[in-house]
Amino acid sequence: MDLIVMKFGGTSVADAERIRRAARRAIKAKLDGQKVVMVVSAMGKTTDHLIALAGEISSDPPRRELDMLLTTGEQVSISLMAMAINDAGHEAISLTGGQIGLITDAVHSKARIQEIQADRIRKELDNGKIVIVAGFQGIDSTGEITTLGRGASDTTAVALAAVLGAKLCEIYTDVDGVYTTDPRMEPKARKIARISYDEMLELASLGAGVMHSRAIEFGKKYNVNIHVRSSFSDTEGTLITHEVEQMEHIVVSGAAVKKDLVQFVLVGLPNEPGVAAELFAHVAKHNVVVDDIIQTIDEKGAASTSFTVERGDLAEGKLVLQEIAKQFNATRVVCNDPVAKVSVVGVGMRSHTGVAQKMFSALAEAEVNIIAITTSEIKISCIIDPGDAVKALQAIHAAFDLDKEA
Amino acid sequence: MDLIVMKFGGTSVADAERIRRAARRAIKAKLDGQKVVMVVSAMGKTTDHLIALAGEISSDPPRRELDMLLTTGEQVSISLMAMAINDAGHEAISLTGGQIGLITDAVHSKARIQEIQADRIRKELDNGKIVIVAGFQGIDSTGEITTLGRGASDTTAVALAAVLGAKLCEIYTDVDGVYTTDPRMEPKARKIARISYDEMLELASLGAGVMHSRAIEFGKKYNVNIHVRSSFSDTEGTLITHEVEQMEHIVVSGAAVKKDLVQFVLVGLPNEPGVAAELFAHVAKHNVVVDDIIQTIDEKGAASTSFTVERGDLAEGKLVLQEIAKQFNATRVVCNDPVAKVSVVGVGMRSHTGVAQKMFSALAEAEVNIIAITTSEIKISCIIDPGDAVKALQAIHAAFDLDKEA
Repeated sequence: MDLIVMKFGGTSVADAERIRRAARRAIKAKLDGQKVVMVVSAMGKTTDHLIALAGEISSDPPRRELDMLLTTGEQVSISLMAMAINDAGHEAISLTGGQIGLITDAVHSKARIQEIQADRIRKELDNGKIVIVAGFQGIDSTGEITTLGRGASDTTAVALAAVLGAKLCEIYTDVDGVYTTDPRMEPKARKIARISYDEMLELASLGAGVMHSRAIEFGKKYNVNIHVRSSFSDTEGTLITHEVEQMEHIVVSGAAVKKDLVQFVLVGLPNEPGVAAELFAHVAKHNVVVDDIIQTIDEKGAASTSFTVERGDLAEGKLVLQEIAKQFNATRVVCNDPVAKVSVVGVGMRSHTGVAQKMFSALAEAEVNIIAITTSEIKISCIIDPGDAVKALQAIHAAFDLDKEA
Repeated sequence: MDLIVMKFGGTSVADAERIRRAARRAIKAKLDGQKVVMVVSAMGKTTDHLIALAGEISSDPPRRELDMLLTTGEQVSISLMAMAINDAGHEAISLTGGQIGLITDAVHSKARIQEIQADRIRKELDNGKIVIVAGFQGIDSTGEITTLGRGASDTTAVALAAVLGAKLCEIYTDVDGVYTTDPRMEPKARKIARISYDEMLELASLGAGVMHSRAIEFGKKYNVNIHVRSSFSDTEGTLITHEVEQMEHIVVSGAAVKKDLVQFVLVGLPNEPGVAAELFAHVAKHNVVVDDIIQTIDEKGAASTSFTVERGDLAEGKLVLQEIAKQFNATRVVCNDPVAKVSVVGVGMRSHTGVAQKMFSALAEAEVNIIAITTSEIKISCIIDPGDAVKALQAIHAAFDLDKEA
């Protein structure tokens, strides 16, 4: 019997009617002869509401207590979903992160999955039940409640699909798939039918908000096909899967802009082995998530290192910067706040030349100044002024013909 | 070092300001040199709101899922309380029912405490922390989330006080103590300074909504002094404690009315050993909570048995009634819906005569018809028409001089 994991985001369970709609999808899959695991996020704006409530009490609540608070959101959704399925005459059971044995490390608010003891889920599936799992949450080895970070219900879903050997993981959301870029910024954006994990990873980390990066990493690592689709229609969405040959014909699959970044620059660091390692040990110690790292050598032979972080980590980023500057006697420290990053992504880039040149030309024609450049095998990113973000994106989108059917 | 348990009801934690006020009380007790355990209910109308949410999904949600849903209310409160104490510069930790090892049986929505493995609480107290426990909830031996019934955060508090050997359990609520009767029904009602567990038990089970009956039972059994007081002032409330000699001088301590009851009457049951036992085995099987049982013999020597239940159990009560009537060939079955019960309570009753006569006279003068009578050692109750409830209560309150200082 095939097993399917269906994940429903906050907008897909925002009220009783939407919960019933999601329940009907699960029941249909069950009646089609599949074992069904649902992963559910908190209803609508619940998480934001809870964070606001915490904000009324404390400007800097302990992360352990924030996890204790936020995990209630998913617990509410899963119980209501179980009630909806039950009310429709089918058997269901809701389970918290702790109850499914989703064990994480002890880093509250950004915990990483260490293990899923899926025995309980298997037992309930074997009993013919639809199993409804609370996304986003787990427990550490001592039983403390942890969360995996905002948007990490996707990660829960794909990790479960991997552990349970599911054929497919469906991500139901409020958009009908992955687009060549954010349609709110570029109305000519087009839905992508298939995309590789690597491209999707780049797009996700570049601010294409459709899916959580770690979820895609899990999908890639454990070979889980991920179908991102709308919970409000039956239209096919975007399949995230292994690279297939035809994908290579497309040079660039998508473009993205990420705003609300801060760039830290350290000038005059010693240019010797181990400096970068020490530097990012400080970063890791403070649990700051680094977006991009760029290092170059200046005319005196000293190293100049810059890294970008999300503005939410600004305060801790500055702490890190001070520690590093002090330890290595940096000659100058710069904090560019805010900056934006515009990028193009495509596995086809590997076998095509001139992609970078085309991007820089498009930006030049749009009169966008490039503060910094960083590239990977399948991505080119430019750090720019946030005020230039939209025109930069539109220029690139047009330059790579992303508005035209591939 | 003395240990105190402080329980805060829903109205006492209804918003950020009230949570901070409760936090200050706990911090003050800590600074006075006591170890402090707080037990917290869900904020304000949260539980009602969650029940309404479930009602939008299903008219008859599985009790397991209802427990999964409702326990989130207390989890929100405890995390916010921990944040408030932390924000005031003191150490606190919130713990769920599962995390403190509050083990119950598996009867969802009406679970009973079987054991509290208080090691975790003791460890955190020894580390100098204020421990904040989610009231109302536990887990069964398989890790399923259970609840102890509406209002059962009191029970959690007193049970913890018992297990931890606390000197005192303070119940902070929106009233400033226990009154001779409900002041909304009889404006002349007076606050009682001290009351015995037995009297309080009777009053609680009679609908004096101040405290949960099982909490008082635990208090009596394990010798926990319970101080019911207002969270909005420093006025002394009511101390619920062991009977002391002076209490005997007061014949009647309080009066109460309980509405929303249903009386079931079974006429013509066999008058032989074991019938009542069999009868209430049916009742227990359906987890219906029986209020009062009255049995008499009719002129033909057959047994006539009546019992009252809360209207919430009406549907299941009727099921039970049908089972019983069928098994024993009852000649007649009556369902009086709704009825009310008016009662007087007092340990002094034991050593005074004429209490019943005085009550019945007061009701007769107020022209209240008595449908049924039932008494205990320290209580007299009359089943009456709900329309007569207020005037019956006022007549009794005056007849026993409850408005006058003892």
